Amino acid sequence: MLTFIGLGLYDEHSITREGETALRDADRVFAEFYTSRLLGASVEELETHHDIEIEVRDRAGVEQDPEPMLAAAAEGDVAFLTAGDTMISTTHADLRVRAAERGIDTRVVHGVTAETAASGLTGLQNYRFGKAVTLPFPAVHGAGDVPPSVIESIDANRERGLHTLVYLDIKIDTHAEMSVDDPFMRASEAAALLAESWGDELGIVVARAGSPEPVVAADRLSALADQSFGEPLHLLVIPGDLHHVEADALESLAGAPPALLSDEV
Amino acid sequence: MLTFIGLGLYDEHSITREGETALRDADRVFAEFYTSRLLGASVEELETHHDIEIEVRDRAGVEQDPEPMLAAAAEGDVAFLTAGDTMISTTHADLRVRAAERGIDTRVVHGVTAETAASGLTGLQNYRFGKAVTLPFPAVHGAGDVPPSVIESIDANRERGLHTLVYLDIKIDTHAEMSVDDPFMRASEAAALLAESWGDELGIVVARAGSPEPVVAADRLSALADQSFGEPLHLLVIPGDLHHVEADALESLAGAPPALLSDEV
Repeated sequence: MLTFIGLGLYDEHSITREGETALRDADRVFAEFYTSRLLGASVEELETHHDIEIEVRDRAGVEQDPEPMLAAAAEGDVAFLTAGDTMISTTHADLRVRAAERGIDTRVVHGVTAETAASGLTGLQNYRFGKAVTLPFPAVHGAGDVPPSVIESIDANRERGLHTLVYLDIKIDTHAEMSVDDPFMRASEAAALLAESWGDELGIVVARAGSPEPVVAADRLSALADQSFGEPLHLLVIPGDLHHVEADALESLAGAPPALLSDEV
Repeated sequence: MLTFIGLGLYDEHSITREGETALRDADRVFAEFYTSRLLGASVEELETHHDIEIEVRDRAGVEQDPEPMLAAAAEGDVAFLTAGDTMISTTHADLRVRAAERGIDTRVVHGVTAETAASGLTGLQNYRFGKAVTLPFPAVHGAGDVPPSVIESIDANRERGLHTLVYLDIKIDTHAEMSVDDPFMRASEAAALLAESWGDELGIVVARAGSPEPVVAADRLSALADQSFGEPLHLLVIPGDLHHVEADALESLAGAPPALLSDEV
């Protein structure tokens, strides 16, 4: 049996009870922390808290050499851990398909996602979000500061009145070779990049979603670009049309300037 | 302090450790189960498991008469529980704004959402979903079997190659007065309604997401309409263009007929 477990967003308390039970019952526990990682707990803290040993696999160890994990899952109960939710990356789905094709039973224990938290913390309604985008580090791609596909997706959502969740690039395993100092893009950098297209428009920063002290701040993108929001992870939301409860929430919970909230629907 | 806690999708084990701690530390615990409820645990089972008393509020008790909850939260630690995630409904966001305006500290403990589970169980990538829709019971609205807004949203997503998550109507508090027998719409009914527009197209049923034995089934909508998927909750996904890993996942994990997966991107 191969059980994919999402650890949730922040630390050892972010996992569900179901996930914790599966984790502690597993014969072997593998994890990958290159697509994301928990900012509030180290691997050692997870091991101590749950009284388990975690075998951390790098990208090559998951994608090119999954055989040791599959062999273990064919013989016993194996847990495969990721930060946030599981199955967020095609890597995980691919591993599940490989297991299924070998006749290994698989199971998915969901975790809280950044998407869920962004909606919950901002008061923006989840069914009013369009397609999400990821804003890459400018050094990573070769198409200007913001890739045209990102601008097109935000524009297409805005035309339909929909909000856009902007995931900020994470390059845990490759940032050094790409001359990127910090593996986590910060919201101020993202706001500065997007302000080139929509400087006077409202943006919403969500910092450390899922932690005991998340920060949510709404302001013009050009103003958000000049602020600092502390430790990662950060997200950004570009809102579409606002329902009046959404506007109220942004004003009272995120400090949005009332002048930016006038086009309520 | 007013702490909003999402219980997750299925039973008493679906909550996060963080949520469980907040729940057990609260002086009073309120809950609403009219927007959704846990299918795998009764209120009594939740009370026994966590050794708490839960004061369940109906819609009027949350929306028209929040005063007792706010007064309690002004004096002590109050937890407000919902099935799935919290803040999914404007009702919850409105309550949080009211609390904030009275100077009551608020906190959100996220839960796993149906959206997260639908993506995780199907292998469809979360950033390839467009706007979600809710399919209402035909008896509830007066605009034909499927409201034009639902058809337009699915069409708009498909034009952009995006998947659509279709939430199925839940009418826990009002189904009797609307002559609806079952408060939970089933996937077969939903597939039959959508088959009027897209009968030969691929649909994906997700039943009992978050439970120990979820069911995922992919087939033509007209074929899904003739099947039964057991106990609620059910969801339906109308896929857009498929990445090859998504197509592989639908074939090996959901039994999708290969002939329907030919337009991979």
